[in-house]
Formats: sequence, C-alpha cells, structure tokens
Amino acid sequence: MKKKPLILISNDDGIEADGIQALWRQLRKFGDVVVVAPLTQQSAVGHAITTSSPIRVRKNLIDKGFYGYAVEGTPADSVKLAVRNLLIDRKIDLLVSGINQGSNTAINVIYSGTVSAATEGTVLGIPSIAVSLGSFEYKNFEPAAKFASKLAKVVLKRGLPKGVLLNVNVPALPESKIKGVLVTKQGKSDWEDWYEKRLDPNKREYYWLAGKMLNGDNSREYDHKAIVDGFISVTPIHYDLTAHKLLDEIKSWNLKK
Amino acid sequence: MKKKPLILISNDDGIEADGIQALWRQLRKFGDVVVVAPLTQQSAVGHAITTSSPIRVRKNLIDKGFYGYAVEGTPADSVKLAVRNLLIDRKIDLLVSGINQGSNTAINVIYSGTVSAATEGTVLGIPSIAVSLGSFEYKNFEPAAKFASKLAKVVLKRGLPKGVLLNVNVPALPESKIKGVLVTKQGKSDWEDWYEKRLDPNKREYYWLAGKMLNGDNSREYDHKAIVDGFISVTPIHYDLTAHKLLDEIKSWNLKK
Repeated sequence: MKKKPLILISNDDGIEADGIQALWRQLRKFGDVVVVAPLTQQSAVGHAITTSSPIRVRKNLIDKGFYGYAVEGTPADSVKLAVRNLLIDRKIDLLVSGINQGSNTAINVIYSGTVSAATEGTVLGIPSIAVSLGSFEYKNFEPAAKFASKLAKVVLKRGLPKGVLLNVNVPALPESKIKGVLVTKQGKSDWEDWYEKRLDPNKREYYWLAGKMLNGDNSREYDHKAIVDGFISVTPIHYDLTAHKLLDEIKSWNLKK
Repeated sequence: MKKKPLILISNDDGIEADGIQALWRQLRKFGDVVVVAPLTQQSAVGHAITTSSPIRVRKNLIDKGFYGYAVEGTPADSVKLAVRNLLIDRKIDLLVSGINQGSNTAINVIYSGTVSAATEGTVLGIPSIAVSLGSFEYKNFEPAAKFASKLAKVVLKRGLPKGVLLNVNVPALPESKIKGVLVTKQGKSDWEDWYEKRLDPNKREYYWLAGKMLNGDNSREYDHKAIVDGFISVTPIHYDLTAHKLLDEIKSWNLKK
C-alpha cells in the first residue's frame, strides 16, 4: 500500500478556528494530517517571528478532533517549529495554511499571517498553499476546503518551483454560485483607513485602526477583482522582493559612499 | 527661503535605539525631521499591524533630544499612525527607517520590521528608504547615517516609482574601509536555524529560536555578499509578490472548482 502524504495545516486565526476543521476533514481523506497552529488569533501579524522570547507548545490536541500542537507564537513560528522540532521523523510533503476568515488579496497579502505561514513553509522547502475565504462572517468553509483539497492533490503530484507558493482566495458563496477558477496576479486594491481617536473610561486617549478595502482593480486578471466577481483566485507568489525593472535606473544614479 | 523637506524617521529597534539618534543628527542638517517609532524593540515583527487592540502614543519626546512620538505598536503601526493622524498638517516628503542594528539582506528582508516600516511608507505614497547596519554589536552608525543622508537627498530630488522602496545595508566598518556602493538584488542566503528545547526553573519545557545566517550568495550582485565584501548595498524592492514567470504554468494546470 502506498504511504499517504504528510500534510501540515497551520493558520493565523488560531487553532480553535473553524477553517482548520474544514481543511482537516477534506485533507485527511487522502493524507496523514497534523495541525501546528497558533494558540490564539494572530491576524495581521505579517511574517513576525519570535526571537527574543521563549515559545511554549501544547501537545496532542485530540480533544479538538484532530492531532496537533498549539504554539504560543505567530503563524511563522508555528511552521518553523513544526519543521525544525515537532515533525522531524518524517518529511512534510505539503503545507496548507488556513482557511482564513477574510480574503488575503492585493495589499492584504503583505499583512497576512495566513500567507506568512505558507511563505515560511516555502522558505523551509515545503510546497505550500495559503487559503482564505472572502468574508469575515460567512461560515460555509466547505467550498474552499474542497477546492484546497483538489489543489493539494495537484501540487503533491506536480510540485512547485523553489521559492514559489500559491495564494488562494475563495469567494464567500455557496458552491453552486462560484463561477470558476482564475489564475491571477496580486491586485493593486488597497485600504482607505484611519485611526479613531477615543477616550478610555479613565479619560486617557487611545487610537484604534478602522477602514475599508477599496476595489482598485478593474480586471479579473487581479486577485481581488476575481473574487469580487465570484471566481476562486489562485496567485503564484514569491518572496524575492527585488524590483528588477529598477536595477538599471538606480545604477544610473552613480551613488558614491 | 525654500522650505525644508519634512522627513519622517521610524525604526524597529524602538525609539531609544542609537540608530535613530545617528539618523536624526544627519537628516536635520537639511530637513525638518520628526521621529515616530515603536516604544519598544520590535525586531523580526515583519509587517505586523495592530487591528484588534488599541494603540497608545507618547508625545513630544524633547527629552530624548529630538521631536517625535513613541507608539505602543509595531513599525508599520507607527508609520500608518504618523501618516493618518499625527502628521496631517504637512505632506511628508520622505521616510527613512532605521538605522537597524543588524543587516536586513536576503531572506531577512521578509522578517524585517525596519523594511516593513519603509514598505508601509511606500504603501501610503511616501518615498521610503530602509537602512540597516551589518552587525548586532558594532556601534559606529556614522558611515551609515552619512550615506542615508546622501541617498535621502537624491531620492528627494528624483523620487521613486510607485510601489518601490530602497533597502540599504551598510557593512559594519569604519568609513575608510567601506569599498563603495553597489546596487544589488535580494540575495538567496538563508538561515540554518533550530529551536533549543529547555526547561524553565519550574521544570516546564520551552523553545527558543537560535541560528546563524549562511552566506549562500557567491556574487556581489546580491545584497548579502555585497556587504560581506565591504560594500554598501542598495536594493530596489517592491511589494508586488506575484511570481509572474509562473502564471502561464499554473494556467496550464486547468484548475476547476
């Protein structure tokens, strides 16, 4: 009998999040699945990694319906610790991060803990996929989990080039309403945001970030517009941040020390 | 008389860090300079942004020798709050983040709070530069501050294209030993890292990240190798993470929902 692939699930909404349960149910149909995820909600932590304080781990969370570890750290901490210490007996064949409650398209990609977990997997040589659902409230994770499972099988078979991961966003719609799948670029949509300045009960000032995502993309070749129009979006992304087109121009500045 | 440019300084080592003082001394020679930086050390926080809790601000830190604000948040929080609320009376002409104690080259770029402050500036439409010094111990920030000041003047004059920032790394050497300036790409060097598993005084387990940066680049066209060889490295980076080369291949997978 062929050995099942070992699949690591992580996320940024924390180990209690519904998105993990939905992924777990789909992926365990064909894989050996282990969850290593943050103990608590870690949204918008970006690629934070804990270096100046210790990390604790809570083990074997059978009571949550799956096998895994809760890490008192960030998404990137969870993945690094999984690979470096917790799961060293067997090669991890695939990492799936999510399913995030809320899309990670356009500018949100740089703030996303969901994407950063998958990025860390990629840094550590594991084919990795980030999966997000396009709403903060919608609770039907099944279409996203089913697509993630289908894509997981393709990636297990084909692999991904070194340094590249897949960022998947699924519209918050029932399966029958989803129009199809588009391979997209990271969009240009960004936030109109502001800080509300308030007084606490003791009359001390504090600020709280508020805002709304603007749809700044007019074509379905971009991730944000694709999900707004009802398509699943799959974007290949990498962490080579070099703006190659600018190299020659900056060289022409003839900078001296 | 021509108005001086308004320059915002931020960092990730926190408002008490020596690197801010060195930048401040150089930039105030030709600019109106305001510091808005995290109250505490924020290394390796990546592009974390605080959305689920309030942020407090401590104002007018004249006692530290400069004018500014300490933000109880991350580097990206500091920059966003500066732009959205604290400095709304006047257009910010330039952001300089740093000078970080420790290089931000190769893989470290994705973990870096110093870079993320400059990235947030870029997102908000401000020409932005991140500056790091290639050592955790070396305390001579002057060569880095002088080069940052020279580069700041060039950027104030020429501008930067939308979505692009400059990531500067300066070797930990006296000015006379620095060999020159190279425009580079983000390198491929990464970490050999591991978690040390220890017992606390109460016999409970904890993990602590340790590791060393490996030099995986054999050419000075990459940032890490450039500073190892004694050159100042200037890398144009952006936050469009799309792996454009992979778009056609992923399309050929013919993914269905």
